[in-house]
Amino acid sequence: MRTQVAVIGAGPAGLLLSYLLHQAGVEAVVLEARDREYVRQRVRAGVCEQPTVDLLTEIGLGGRLAAEGLPHEGFSLRFDGTDHRIALTELTGKAITVYGQQEIVKDLVDAHEAADLPLHFEVSDVSLSALDSSRPVVRYRDSSGVVQTLECDAVAGCDGFHGVSRPSIPDGVLTIFEREYPFAWLGVLARTQPSHEELIYTHHPRGFALHSMRSPDVTRLYLQVDPAENLAAWSDDRIWTELSTRLAVDGEFTLREGPILDKGITPMRSFVTEPMRHGRLFLAGDAAHIVPPTGAKGMNLAVADVVVLSRALVALLQGDSALAESYSDTCLRRVWRAEHFSWFMTTMLHVDPGADAFAQRLQLSQLRYTASSRAAATSLAENYVGLPFV
Amino acid sequence: MRTQVAVIGAGPAGLLLSYLLHQAGVEAVVLEARDREYVRQRVRAGVCEQPTVDLLTEIGLGGRLAAEGLPHEGFSLRFDGTDHRIALTELTGKAITVYGQQEIVKDLVDAHEAADLPLHFEVSDVSLSALDSSRPVVRYRDSSGVVQTLECDAVAGCDGFHGVSRPSIPDGVLTIFEREYPFAWLGVLARTQPSHEELIYTHHPRGFALHSMRSPDVTRLYLQVDPAENLAAWSDDRIWTELSTRLAVDGEFTLREGPILDKGITPMRSFVTEPMRHGRLFLAGDAAHIVPPTGAKGMNLAVADVVVLSRALVALLQGDSALAESYSDTCLRRVWRAEHFSWFMTTMLHVDPGADAFAQRLQLSQLRYTASSRAAATSLAENYVGLPFV
Repeated sequence: MRTQVAVIGAGPAGLLLSYLLHQAGVEAVVLEARDREYVRQRVRAGVCEQPTVDLLTEIGLGGRLAAEGLPHEGFSLRFDGTDHRIALTELTGKAITVYGQQEIVKDLVDAHEAADLPLHFEVSDVSLSALDSSRPVVRYRDSSGVVQTLECDAVAGCDGFHGVSRPSIPDGVLTIFEREYPFAWLGVLARTQPSHEELIYTHHPRGFALHSMRSPDVTRLYLQVDPAENLAAWSDDRIWTELSTRLAVDGEFTLREGPILDKGITPMRSFVTEPMRHGRLFLAGDAAHIVPPTGAKGMNLAVADVVVLSRALVALLQGDSALAESYSDTCLRRVWRAEHFSWFMTTMLHVDPGADAFAQRLQLSQLRYTASSRAAATSLAENYVGLPFV
Repeated sequence: MRTQVAVIGAGPAGLLLSYLLHQAGVEAVVLEARDREYVRQRVRAGVCEQPTVDLLTEIGLGGRLAAEGLPHEGFSLRFDGTDHRIALTELTGKAITVYGQQEIVKDLVDAHEAADLPLHFEVSDVSLSALDSSRPVVRYRDSSGVVQTLECDAVAGCDGFHGVSRPSIPDGVLTIFEREYPFAWLGVLARTQPSHEELIYTHHPRGFALHSMRSPDVTRLYLQVDPAENLAAWSDDRIWTELSTRLAVDGEFTLREGPILDKGITPMRSFVTEPMRHGRLFLAGDAAHIVPPTGAKGMNLAVADVVVLSRALVALLQGDSALAESYSDTCLRRVWRAEHFSWFMTTMLHVDPGADAFAQRLQLSQLRYTASSRAAATSLAENYVGLPFV
């Protein structure tokens, strides 16, 4: 079998890349380890930056997003028992849209099926070879157990942090940059109307808390916990009590409770690999970098990567390799901006068990300054709504 | 002897406080351990924030400052071999003025002498007592060796980090917040025209460097060095070579060299004591807090403290203690803002020998962002030129 671009992974990065390539007249085949239903249901990120919304709209996939997405023109920053609004749209002219990653994936899967684009689920034993040549080869076992060989001009590694693409690059080529944080997020999905129309990011002496939402009927809530925390120790009652305590402010605020549909603990990590390319293998999204979720940057970074990558691949297939050569540097500039911003939001809002009293006071001063300075709030807001893609 | 306010220390904080009290009709006596010439020559800070300049002008001490001070409407931020200007005035409407701390001290000493205000040099064995009462007592030995007793209504501890005021407060009253940095500044004063009309803050892989000035003929230059560095290891030649290397940019820049008049190594520290008051003893300036010099905040913080303190003491002596009660909280808000800003400038610009590769990349991303975002540059600029006093 032959194709122009082999795309490994059917998350938002792989599916969007394949669709952008299709629109540019480039053939791609998407290979995904999981089954179709798993991919369509996988709950991950929920906040789309303005450039992500603009892109999805431009390529004709903005219909359901416009109908069901929840545009937000600001969010709350809570600390010291008081609430401060970061007026995103007033400060930057832009907004974010709450629309679950799985909804974008559904839209992309549907678009692939409608256009009859090759999207293969439940493949296994994927291996990449001849990446150094102009004719890489992807071998895999298809869902019926038959081994397949796919020859292509380029491979896009969009298979996430645990995927096979990054480990296919020979030892010594990549430099890894990493940070583990001394806390994790206990996340719950609850069937209840959100308690506030906007997101609430809270710094509390007992730890960070976040009030978010997935829809008008489903609230998403997070609590900072120890990375070694045992989920079994958190009854629904304990979760609601802790959320109410941390989200409390002087004045009116009541947390709406409801049945908890899902709960889980996620460790927090920063990770970057440099470069994001080896020969004809291009890494995009979580395969190349991880951010802690505090800044809501993970999915948006993946979208930015594949926008750059789609242009680079279109040019490469027309014989111009300049954009392919610069792909990694172009993306890494934005990646490091997002890594810095995510680190900044994370360290400003969480309680670091290792912080000394001096660091605690600095953190409080930074929160107060961010809430009181237009320049500081604008800086936070412009990063949050998303800097331009290129 | 009796006075209303005993001021310990004739640095900028003590002298300015005494002069502000005099203008408000309150009697003060200033006690200083050093001799008159030492105090007038002591080279320390050199950058006046806009609010400091405005205050000195308002109280009639702006004459020589206006004639000899060098107003700066921006500074350079250098990294990665390129120069970026932070346009202070364009971004904030304000400027800073380069005018040595010793010049302000000379102006204040002259003003004291012209008004015949009590300012005693070369006092020793200062001790404070009855601070908990409404009649504190200051005992000291005057310059002729005679022990004196000064009864007063309040004591202002303006005697710096190593002074006697802070240690006069009983154990257990104060909470100390501290941070030592893994680097120091090697500073030189050179008789040569500055190489650039504005300050240059440089981040270089070999370490931070700063090009500053004291006058049109005297340049002030700093190099990041290890706190354990031996000054004897730094010949003038080595200093100039290192400065040229770190300050180099792509394009035109030549460092002007000249005779080195003075050199020294200063460790870098952050320090805050809470509260800044005990009974009738009020701490101000370096007696209460130290910032690393990177943000040029030390002297300006001292000025802000004594502006608040002079109002509090005037009210206290009229029987209203509300401002005295709130003195510490009012000052600490600004102190922590300056501590945070100084930490931010320091960590953004210096090479931390303990930083991992991830932290190094974050630092570079932050520098690039600060140089390219108007919001981020405005945030830096508004802190640098100085937020309003109260």
